[in-house]
Amino acid sequence: MIVVMKKGASQDAIDHLVEMIEGLGLRSHVIVGTERTVIAAIGDERHTHKESLESSPEVDEVVPILAPYKMASTEVKQEPTVVQAGGLTVGGTQIGMIAGPCSVESEEQIVETAKLVKRCGGTALRGGAFKPRTSPYSFQGLKEEGLQMLATAREETGLAVVTEVVATDDVELVAKYADVLQIGARNMQNYRLLEAVGNVDRAVLLKRGAAATVDELLLAGEYILSAGNPNVMLCERGIRTFEGHTRFTLPLATVPYLHQKTHLPVVIDPSHGTGHTYLVPDMASAAIAAGADGLIVEVHPDPETAMSDGYQSLNFAQFEAMMQRCRRVATAIDKTI
Amino acid sequence: MIVVMKKGASQDAIDHLVEMIEGLGLRSHVIVGTERTVIAAIGDERHTHKESLESSPEVDEVVPILAPYKMASTEVKQEPTVVQAGGLTVGGTQIGMIAGPCSVESEEQIVETAKLVKRCGGTALRGGAFKPRTSPYSFQGLKEEGLQMLATAREETGLAVVTEVVATDDVELVAKYADVLQIGARNMQNYRLLEAVGNVDRAVLLKRGAAATVDELLLAGEYILSAGNPNVMLCERGIRTFEGHTRFTLPLATVPYLHQKTHLPVVIDPSHGTGHTYLVPDMASAAIAAGADGLIVEVHPDPETAMSDGYQSLNFAQFEAMMQRCRRVATAIDKTI
Amino acid sequence: MIVVMKKGASQDAIDHLVEMIEGLGLRSHVIVGTERTVIAAIGDERHTHKESLESSPEVDEVVPILAPYKMASTEVKQEPTVVQAGGLTVGGTQIGMIAGPCSVESEEQIVETAKLVKRCGGTALRGGAFKPRTSPYSFQGLKEEGLQMLATAREETGLAVVTEVVATDDVELVAKYADVLQIGARNMQNYRLLEAVGNVDRAVLLKRGAAATVDELLLAGEYILSAGNPNVMLCERGIRTFEGHTRFTLPLATVPYLHQKTHLPVVIDPSHGTGHTYLVPDMASAAIAAGADGLIVEVHPDPETAMSDGYQSLNFAQFEAMMQRCRRVATAIDKTI
Amino acid sequence: MIVVMKKGASQDAIDHLVEMIEGLGLRSHVIVGTERTVIAAIGDERHTHKESLESSPEVDEVVPILAPYKMASTEVKQEPTVVQAGGLTVGGTQIGMIAGPCSVESEEQIVETAKLVKRCGGTALRGGAFKPRTSPYSFQGLKEEGLQMLATAREETGLAVVTEVVATDDVELVAKYADVLQIGARNMQNYRLLEAVGNVDRAVLLKRGAAATVDELLLAGEYILSAGNPNVMLCERGIRTFEGHTRFTLPLATVPYLHQKTHLPVVIDPSHGTGHTYLVPDMASAAIAAGADGLIVEVHPDPETAMSDGYQSLNFAQFEAMMQRCRRVATAIDKTI
Repeated sequence: MIVVMKKGASQDAIDHLVEMIEGLGLRSHVIVGTERTVIAAIGDERHTHKESLESSPEVDEVVPILAPYKMASTEVKQEPTVVQAGGLTVGGTQIGMIAGPCSVESEEQIVETAKLVKRCGGTALRGGAFKPRTSPYSFQGLKEEGLQMLATAREETGLAVVTEVVATDDVELVAKYADVLQIGARNMQNYRLLEAVGNVDRAVLLKRGAAATVDELLLAGEYILSAGNPNVMLCERGIRTFEGHTRFTLPLATVPYLHQKTHLPVVIDPSHGTGHTYLVPDMASAAIAAGADGLIVEVHPDPETAMSDGYQSLNFAQFEAMMQRCRRVATAIDKTI
Repeated sequence: MIVVMKKGASQDAIDHLVEMIEGLGLRSHVIVGTERTVIAAIGDERHTHKESLESSPEVDEVVPILAPYKMASTEVKQEPTVVQAGGLTVGGTQIGMIAGPCSVESEEQIVETAKLVKRCGGTALRGGAFKPRTSPYSFQGLKEEGLQMLATAREETGLAVVTEVVATDDVELVAKYADVLQIGARNMQNYRLLEAVGNVDRAVLLKRGAAATVDELLLAGEYILSAGNPNVMLCERGIRTFEGHTRFTLPLATVPYLHQKTHLPVVIDPSHGTGHTYLVPDMASAAIAAGADGLIVEVHPDPETAMSDGYQSLNFAQFEAMMQRCRRVATAIDKTI
Repeated sequence: MIVVMKKGASQDAIDHLVEMIEGLGLRSHVIVGTERTVIAAIGDERHTHKESLESSPEVDEVVPILAPYKMASTEVKQEPTVVQAGGLTVGGTQIGMIAGPCSVESEEQIVETAKLVKRCGGTALRGGAFKPRTSPYSFQGLKEEGLQMLATAREETGLAVVTEVVATDDVELVAKYADVLQIGARNMQNYRLLEAVGNVDRAVLLKRGAAATVDELLLAGEYILSAGNPNVMLCERGIRTFEGHTRFTLPLATVPYLHQKTHLPVVIDPSHGTGHTYLVPDMASAAIAAGADGLIVEVHPDPETAMSDGYQSLNFAQFEAMMQRCRRVATAIDKTI
Repeated sequence: MIVVMKKGASQDAIDHLVEMIEGLGLRSHVIVGTERTVIAAIGDERHTHKESLESSPEVDEVVPILAPYKMASTEVKQEPTVVQAGGLTVGGTQIGMIAGPCSVESEEQIVETAKLVKRCGGTALRGGAFKPRTSPYSFQGLKEEGLQMLATAREETGLAVVTEVVATDDVELVAKYADVLQIGARNMQNYRLLEAVGNVDRAVLLKRGAAATVDELLLAGEYILSAGNPNVMLCERGIRTFEGHTRFTLPLATVPYLHQKTHLPVVIDPSHGTGHTYLVPDMASAAIAAGADGLIVEVHPDPETAMSDGYQSLNFAQFEAMMQRCRRVATAIDKTI
């Protein structure tokens, strides 16, 4: 890292910083500029209390040079990770297509939707059994009963099951039924939960928090990787900005950025990323053109009666049309769905 | 709520919406404008699946009229809630002053800091024993040992103990030692944790998530209130914006806004809200002038050696000076610290 | 619009609002709900001082129902506007491709780049002669000399010329040389300038301000349209958010959103929208897949020596590769470049 | 500045960068780390095309060390600048209080308001004669007639006149009547206008753009300073964030931050910064407690009939109460209004 001293910093302060840096097990290198002195601290800065350097009264700022994550980095592993979970493959030239309702509502609803997803070429079924809801007055999910319905739908179609887990206590139960454990945006920095799914033999779909930086997303992934689970997919589902015409702002540049920084595959959620059904198909196509390794999309047999997220769910005809368009775009960039 | 139909919506669509609205147990009222038709839906909209109305293809948007929270609202309870926990009072004309280190590091460190806080007029001691850290490679706290040190500091000074709980499994343990359970910004929407602290006989300091709207904060508070715990303090600790010269952006207008919408007291955290020691005292004064019911501030005997957050911690001399300034500002608006 | 009264608003206050609304030339309609009274104000709210209604002490909020823009709206003109300017067509199934350096630096540089753009299938040449620069110490452009070089490049290639105008005083001069006048993001709300380009017989490329809402962009377009110039292209070039890994955040959902709200064509700028060369080709492809009517991209014969924006400029080989990829994606959605 | 090479950068690339850096007139210093090589470039980086270094394919990023502005910096001038214009003093321990309506509407309105402002202890009168309005359909101001009314109000009260200038063509005219030229947020990066007010013998109140970084604000100030006008006041009026309950987010930490970085005085606008009358008094008090050198506040004899901004204007009684509270807070921090 680079420690930038304030203008006119005293020699004593510089000496003191050099001592602190070397006390952290790093080498130091002082560069006297025309207006400022900077000190380069050389070595692996990840395990040090580097923040404390910024507390020094004559230090202006501390600029990290190395990425704070390690196992997730392309600097450690260059070949892209391909995650496989049941019928779902994400990574490489195969685009994984995960679709289904926001909430599992009934066996009929989930099985019917699964059959559509399968028929249109999807490879995994999403559906929430444990629902984290902003309001305590909203529907909270069917819980284990919902998980059983997902398993039934898997039996009928062969689709992999992707479903959210919201608490460490539920990890074992959800893992019993699911192929992929989803960590929702609101739990991206629930570190106990990250550690728990890091200890389970299931792939993980880790959603970016709405205000999380990409580095924070990668560090959340690092929690799972360092707990021993290498099957992590990162999911961009939109960030909070001043934009009001979409529920979140979906920054697709995350896809090529992450592909440069990490070997983990990147999935895009155009449903939460826009919050409006009519925006989903164009953004799904765009995500594929941007290089996404997978999509996760909300589909419901009758969005008007959905118990959650109807306003951003595709009906069956819309999903079929979207799949056709996406397949053509995928072909144009030499990938397949 | 108000359902705005698209331009040229058909009579059939309008009839269908009226039927849906009445199916939700609400009354409807159709208003034909010069360019658009809108339908007012009258009744308590909080417990309904109102989102589904937005899925209707001829609906442009649905505008809620009522606040989504209820128990937290001044419409339900007008007199301000005063939270008392050990020596700490927050609400009314008494400003609660919570101070202490980011992490509990040793008995000597926490007791020494507690004595300073007490001497300067603080009423509660903060200190993290369970630390949620962005990186898995950072110091994660002393856990129960840290809680015991906090209890020792309380015995020596009489200060109330405020400390974070990060997992439902720990709630009972932390409640054994703490007067106030802090829910950190990253856990503001960890609903299981909210329910867990809602079931405990301890006051709760609920921090706003960095991308949470104020309505979402109030709904998170509603989870705790509706689980049966009325002793909730809301804490503004800064939001994520494009600003880079502060770690977060501290919007003090939250204080008078919340005072209009909710009876719950409002605490400001100028340490996380700015991320730089030298900005803390001015923002602490400003928070008081804006009407904050309490402050939570990071103080450390030697910030340069702090295991976390040294860059935003005050040393003892800075804290003393800040307290003097804050006390004068409090007097100017007829409050006391 | 809908005027939402505060809880418990008096009958006097309601009567007063009704009077104010009718004084604005609108009809009013009072709806008494279970918790709140709301008043619908019916009629064209665009020309009224509707803001003043919010000043009334017993009013909680005023919710507009109609879009604030009119001439730009699909409610007024449904068929998409196709803008033609010299060799450039933007709108319909033809994607307009505008490319060139950030700044015109020399005749050789601009002519050489123009030839490449032409050869790769581009239809317009961009290049700045008047440069608005954040720092007074940065290169400010070659001014009229630069415009002449652009005209030379047009003569050699037949490409249309797109160049920025930064002041009303320069509009006539720039219009003498350019086919399309570009209004930069920093001038999106320079209303005098908008009026000036509204009075000129040249197409206008209007860039969205980095913190402008989409409604504000459409209102800025409305300034130009209402001054008499119908040839307006809207350009999304990224917004300011908390994201630090890209210079701006490029929200491609703007494309389908605008296509629903306005008949004006939509151009995407992936160069400013990302700020990094390596992200441009993927985001260009994504923009096309999202339905963009045109692209504007920075290309330079030798980005390392560029006088501005080298870090986000493609070199010639990169531009050629990008064009090939974009053409395939365009074909996949039944469009042509 | 610090040039960070990519991992595994070749010696050739490093040599090439050293050559480029030295070609810019800077000295270079190569530091070989354990994972990365960085090159320190030493010298005044402000006048160089440093951006081009980032275009080099083996460069990861370029980190500037020096602030991009110079004349505005405390590194060049340490003692705070005190701006005086007619009866207004901003800077030092005297807080300047600027108040008045958004728009000048009539002689009676502006003179009446001026008398109130004077009586309550204000030192300058604000009022817009040229109004930049988001919609072309909104009231655009009384223009020269409005300026004359402001001059009349000055004659009657002795208050300094602060009014906005929106175009270079108007600078001379506005300067004839005004003591302080205001540059609005939407024109903060209208560089021609900045240069024009830099050439006039009038103080300038420069408002921060809603998406401008503080460095960009200081560079905009630098345009004015470097054109020869040293009487610049910086004004924070709120930024665009995801917050919806206030019109803008008012980050008061800008005050102590700017006081550390620049000698220019800092004025806060709590009216635009919140957008709601009822939030203004608390935020005005908070601004003073945070150390602001001045306030600019919207006051109107009858906000319900205001032609603009009524929803954020104080009536006379509210303004009087605010002034009393502000005066007490000012005294508490040893300042006077």
